[in-house]
Amino acid sequence: MAFPKVSRANLERHLPILQWSKSYDRDALTSDVVAAVIVTIMLIPQSLAYALLAGLPAEMGLYASILPLVAYAIFGTSRALAVGPVAVISLMTAAAVGNLALQGTAEYAAAAITLAFMSGVILTVMGLFRLGFLANFLSHPVIAGFITASGVLIATSQLKHILGVDAHGHNLYELVRSLDAHIQETNMITLLIGVTSVAFLFWVRKGLKPLLLATGLPPRLADILAKAGPVVAVAATTIAVWLFDLEAKGVRIVGEVPMGLPPLSLPSFSGEIWSSLFVSALLISVIGFVESVSVAQTLAAKKRQRIVPDQELVGLGTSNIAAALSGGYPVTGGFARSVVNFDAGAETPAAGAYTAIGIAFAALLLTPLLFFLPKATLAATIIVAVLSLVDFSILTKTWSYSKVDFSAVAATIFLTLGFGVEVGVSAGVLLSLGLFLYKTSRPHVAEVGQVPGTQHFRNILRHNVETHPSLVTLRIDESLYFANARFLEDYLLERVVCDEPIENVVLMCSAVNEIDMSALESLEEINKRLQDMGIALHLSEVKGPVMDRLERSHFLEELSGRVFLSQYDAMIALTPKEQEAAAV
Amino acid sequence: MAFPKVSRANLERHLPILQWSKSYDRDALTSDVVAAVIVTIMLIPQSLAYALLAGLPAEMGLYASILPLVAYAIFGTSRALAVGPVAVISLMTAAAVGNLALQGTAEYAAAAITLAFMSGVILTVMGLFRLGFLANFLSHPVIAGFITASGVLIATSQLKHILGVDAHGHNLYELVRSLDAHIQETNMITLLIGVTSVAFLFWVRKGLKPLLLATGLPPRLADILAKAGPVVAVAATTIAVWLFDLEAKGVRIVGEVPMGLPPLSLPSFSGEIWSSLFVSALLISVIGFVESVSVAQTLAAKKRQRIVPDQELVGLGTSNIAAALSGGYPVTGGFARSVVNFDAGAETPAAGAYTAIGIAFAALLLTPLLFFLPKATLAATIIVAVLSLVDFSILTKTWSYSKVDFSAVAATIFLTLGFGVEVGVSAGVLLSLGLFLYKTSRPHVAEVGQVPGTQHFRNILRHNVETHPSLVTLRIDESLYFANARFLEDYLLERVVCDEPIENVVLMCSAVNEIDMSALESLEEINKRLQDMGIALHLSEVKGPVMDRLERSHFLEELSGRVFLSQYDAMIALTPKEQEAAAV
Repeated sequence: MAFPKVSRANLERHLPILQWSKSYDRDALTSDVVAAVIVTIMLIPQSLAYALLAGLPAEMGLYASILPLVAYAIFGTSRALAVGPVAVISLMTAAAVGNLALQGTAEYAAAAITLAFMSGVILTVMGLFRLGFLANFLSHPVIAGFITASGVLIATSQLKHILGVDAHGHNLYELVRSLDAHIQETNMITLLIGVTSVAFLFWVRKGLKPLLLATGLPPRLADILAKAGPVVAVAATTIAVWLFDLEAKGVRIVGEVPMGLPPLSLPSFSGEIWSSLFVSALLISVIGFVESVSVAQTLAAKKRQRIVPDQELVGLGTSNIAAALSGGYPVTGGFARSVVNFDAGAETPAAGAYTAIGIAFAALLLTPLLFFLPKATLAATIIVAVLSLVDFSILTKTWSYSKVDFSAVAATIFLTLGFGVEVGVSAGVLLSLGLFLYKTSRPHVAEVGQVPGTQHFRNILRHNVETHPSLVTLRIDESLYFANARFLEDYLLERVVCDEPIENVVLMCSAVNEIDMSALESLEEINKRLQDMGIALHLSEVKGPVMDRLERSHFLEELSGRVFLSQYDAMIALTPKEQEAAAV
Repeated sequence: MAFPKVSRANLERHLPILQWSKSYDRDALTSDVVAAVIVTIMLIPQSLAYALLAGLPAEMGLYASILPLVAYAIFGTSRALAVGPVAVISLMTAAAVGNLALQGTAEYAAAAITLAFMSGVILTVMGLFRLGFLANFLSHPVIAGFITASGVLIATSQLKHILGVDAHGHNLYELVRSLDAHIQETNMITLLIGVTSVAFLFWVRKGLKPLLLATGLPPRLADILAKAGPVVAVAATTIAVWLFDLEAKGVRIVGEVPMGLPPLSLPSFSGEIWSSLFVSALLISVIGFVESVSVAQTLAAKKRQRIVPDQELVGLGTSNIAAALSGGYPVTGGFARSVVNFDAGAETPAAGAYTAIGIAFAALLLTPLLFFLPKATLAATIIVAVLSLVDFSILTKTWSYSKVDFSAVAATIFLTLGFGVEVGVSAGVLLSLGLFLYKTSRPHVAEVGQVPGTQHFRNILRHNVETHPSLVTLRIDESLYFANARFLEDYLLERVVCDEPIENVVLMCSAVNEIDMSALESLEEINKRLQDMGIALHLSEVKGPVMDRLERSHFLEELSGRVFLSQYDAMIALTPKEQEAAAV
């Protein structure tokens, strides 16, 4: 019998739980349980609220916070990441599923489950094929702009619950117009509950902790108590609705939440649904992964731990598949709750599994208590949470640093607000790639001369350097490839048509990291044309990998000039003696 | 009265005819007329044949060779380019229009006219907005692969006319299967005409000219006579069909071609048709432009003339609009006929206008003579013409030079043959851009040391260089931008975790042409982490434009080390004295 040999190290790589569980002891257990209790208290209202944001029944938020956490504990590599429903992904789910079905229908919930499954499969496959690097093509500014705009959209979308009216829309214009149309129907008691909750939660966030510290509480406890704010708001407003029978006065409540553990659910396998959700699933996967991995990396760095991005993909992928199989919807690692988990002392991913047990208890026992919970309170927790994500300073930062980055960010924000999340983030990615390609297609070319007394060569326009009229040295500040091959041809031939007695042209290739086939053909063309004009073409400072490749072509045989190791060698060889004497 | 001031130079830029017509004289007239006569003789059978290839009535080929040539003569900048129907664009037209309507219907012809109009508008708009550079994103190898694969497809598609059977398909598999299904129906007389024509045309191409030269004819005349081969084939086979009444024996003929000048036609303005043709029109525009401009540039270079790519777009755009308004279909500059035009001595774009007059006469007077022209003869002219485009050597060339270029070419050829022209060329473009982005996302990083006795620094793995254990110098061979920002972070932090007593890390930035916002954030992160480890981060050889930008951020204030003008300065400053003494 010959089983394929599976090494322990290989197994541990794919199942990180085998690694950390070896040294799991009573200390780690205590830390993890404490962190789990705190995260559970924070996660219950969040799960309900984000399900509401996604347009799903409240219990789906709880279900998405049970099995997915267990899956991540087995397959994930971050020791502090807390997985579950998050604001931006919930909004993206609503946008994606809203195209297929009406909110409140069984089809809508089924589509959300399918979306979680597809996203899970995409993430897992990306992880197994080590495609984590694809996430690098989302630039930081584009993500920052996207998150900010999403925060604005989310906060605006929740105003309807604060006002107690019906309104909907996938972009800022639709939302504002819809709110405007219904604003006369505002329910004053709902508004009171909503505004009070928002004010209370902001105060908890900013003012409570200093107060608690002033009473002599230890900082960590003060911190944790401050995080329980949403639970207090939920409890207080629920009791108020129940006591004063506010439902009869038009306050909308969560209503009956089924009691019990998550049901087994299966995604749809309809080809039509899959093809219409595919792009959305891809965007949700990539955005979720990027967000999650950057949180995980920030927290890991604080303890000098490492996370493995490709394994993170598998961790998040299996979490989403678990969500799909247990009545949930797309999940990822959340920023706020991961920080809380970390601060509360979570030592291993087991903390996530314990949190899952806490939420499971809530789903089993606490749901009847949620009947009178006003939707306005949940909306308030969302608004306060997402406004901390809104940060328009990325606009001023990029404006002063780079107009290209600025335009990518500005377009992302504008398009997300104006046309919804999917258009916004897709456009942001395509635009930033397009701008990068555009830049590389018109490279910076500097004419250089020798910095006196050194062997160093710099731009003649920026530095006081020595040159010789018969020698033109151009430093090309870009790899040469198809998109800029013709540009170089035009630039160079234009440069040599002048009155100077040019005999030699040197292309200084210190910044040329690649010469592709198209560029090689352009160089051959340049060489031929210069030769016709009686000018020799030389190269200098060609890098190893580039030189290897040139040696495999016929270019070096045809080259009218030489290839010099350094620009200094080129200058020595190509300038008349008296010039050389002056320069050295 | 204040008219907007239009300078003569500006007007001439937009209407090149004003420029060359100033010096137009009798000599130029004679040369142009001679060239026009020769091109007309060549163009008549070509126009008919390419219309057949596009699935259109033969007369549309003639119509596409009249007004478009006049438009190009007014707006185009190349003095030798001959515009008209060409093989690849005809095939792409068939692929695009075939999705909308059945061959032979009025809708099919109307869609081809609309396609020409859309392509004309796209080209003209690109020209007015100076977007000619976009064509640079088609890499040479991808174009070469595409043209080769298209040639194979075209030749295969014409076999049905040689066999005299019905067969169709948009890719090689469909075509071969369809031919295979009908091969028993082969008409032997048609096959005889087809094979004889192909053999004759190949012989004309290869064997006739030497023969004519041997009889003492002047080379130029021999050349021109050899180009008349297709006309001889057309005349001979037409007469044969008429004499022996071969139509009754199953030989398919062109049939009635309406006599007269092109009718006025209008494109459809249905939104539905426009949206379904848009991608095709874009591809036809870009491919047509790239092909045309490279022919024009090659010919212009021979006479040290210049063409203006953005004005070429306008020239081709107005040609296509003219085609749409006069019952034609998409046109562009053809390679073979432009070379003939050039060799026959065309001096100005007026030669094109005279050719248009020639074709107009043909449309007015000669069409009755075409009644008995066998389709097999036209197919033979197409096959012989396109087989000269087929050149698989691009595969071996790119294989030895660059595997990345090779994979782009191989994919383009494979996908064009397997899935048709539109899929093939789109995939080629996307793949070559994707591969370029992938390469830049994992840059080459070299650890460098000093070449002894110089101020030059090279890769420690490739050169015999001097280093110092406390100083690590990394040369990053790529611009730093979002797609590789994290790569650098990982690479660098991995490098410094070792047993060496590293005190200083220098990033040698001679190949860094850009540091975007994402990369700046990564550098800030790297600086902070190295600082935590007690290692100072320095930069050297930062380029002017990059330095300007860094100075506008806070990075330089936070940087734990310094910025050195040259790597040599950095080494002198950062290595202990005895090392310095040894190195100098």
